[in-house]
Amino acid sequence: MSPSAVVLLSGGLDSATCLLIAREQGSDVYALSFDYGQRHRIELERAAALARRHGARQHRIAKLDLPSPESSALTDASRPVPRHSLGATAIPATYVGARNTLFLSHALAWAEALGASDIFIGANALDYSGYPDCRPEFLAAFERVADLGTRAGVEGKRPFRVRAPLLSMTKAAIVREATRLGLAFELTSSCYDPSPAGAPCGACDSCLLRAKGFREAGVTDPLAIQE
Amino acid sequence: MSPSAVVLLSGGLDSATCLLIAREQGSDVYALSFDYGQRHRIELERAAALARRHGARQHRIAKLDLPSPESSALTDASRPVPRHSLGATAIPATYVGARNTLFLSHALAWAEALGASDIFIGANALDYSGYPDCRPEFLAAFERVADLGTRAGVEGKRPFRVRAPLLSMTKAAIVREATRLGLAFELTSSCYDPSPAGAPCGACDSCLLRAKGFREAGVTDPLAIQE
Repeated sequence: MSPSAVVLLSGGLDSATCLLIAREQGSDVYALSFDYGQRHRIELERAAALARRHGARQHRIAKLDLPSPESSALTDASRPVPRHSLGATAIPATYVGARNTLFLSHALAWAEALGASDIFIGANALDYSGYPDCRPEFLAAFERVADLGTRAGVEGKRPFRVRAPLLSMTKAAIVREATRLGLAFELTSSCYDPSPAGAPCGACDSCLLRAKGFREAGVTDPLAIQE
Repeated sequence: MSPSAVVLLSGGLDSATCLLIAREQGSDVYALSFDYGQRHRIELERAAALARRHGARQHRIAKLDLPSPESSALTDASRPVPRHSLGATAIPATYVGARNTLFLSHALAWAEALGASDIFIGANALDYSGYPDCRPEFLAAFERVADLGTRAGVEGKRPFRVRAPLLSMTKAAIVREATRLGLAFELTSSCYDPSPAGAPCGACDSCLLRAKGFREAGVTDPLAIQE
């Protein structure tokens, strides 16, 4: 029997690559997405399509009841998504409070129920938007919470592992790895502020990072806006 | 201006006592309860009544979408709640996977949005049901996650504190403290398996612990079943 792994799957490039890495390592993948009122809801459809295409055993979309949707540009459609702001030192307006803590907590609850010990997250500390909850020390701290706060941890079963295989990769390296693994790039969605039909804006942090990654990897992005 | 605190308020004796402790310490209290499909839903009504009675500034009931309700007797009404099992060494059937991790994560998201640094939880490591996520080392680990995973933590604001003032108290000491603070005991609900009208069963772990506490404190519980 293959070991089970919960993969946080946003529908973006990074989390989809994680799904493929988990599959390559022989895990049965349980993909977990969240409906938290994000303006880029197209990503939930893409996540479902990616889970099907790349052999996840199950895909679950959990509802997340956020306390303060108006505090982030990702969850309040009346706030503008910053354009061309990559490289600024402040935490950006797209920050959603404690998001990865919430995502990992829900993943942990599911992992415990499934008997899975691995939780995959596409966090990246190199080519990223500057969110605090993507840093390696945060992920290590969460691993400790997972072990101390669960039955599995107490009963001396295999410890939980928060797996972040993309943590130290450049976006170009991620694109190359995804290419090697056969990711269906056309199913992913990275944009924070896509059109209703799902077309990327081409100018938000996430679009800029994606474009840089494909360019540096020398790979053509099927989603790239035609100039 | 008073500092703000998020208080996890289940509607039980312990969390209600925490609310009063936070108020006595001068905090503006934001009480947070969860609707996670618990069979003892009366506690949500009681939580609302307690928040009103004891001066919480706001009471929020967040929906929690659990992955596996059938894995706990607290969320699956077809599974019996254990009776008279207190003192058993195993983690009981009422354990809800990663519950306090989920509760604290949601409290953290709200605290960050409010600018609050204190999160109160009624965890108790002495007279308790043996849940792993009530232990002090778990709470300390979560505090580290909170500081590393948020904007507030990164920007060097006041660190988050997970406050568990009941951690080392016996149930009798909690009853005495609640008496001193003027808790409306009749509004609390501790039972895991109450009648539809909210009457306690008198035999689950939680009822037994409560009865022991009142007995040892020499206080009459207005909810106690008439023999």
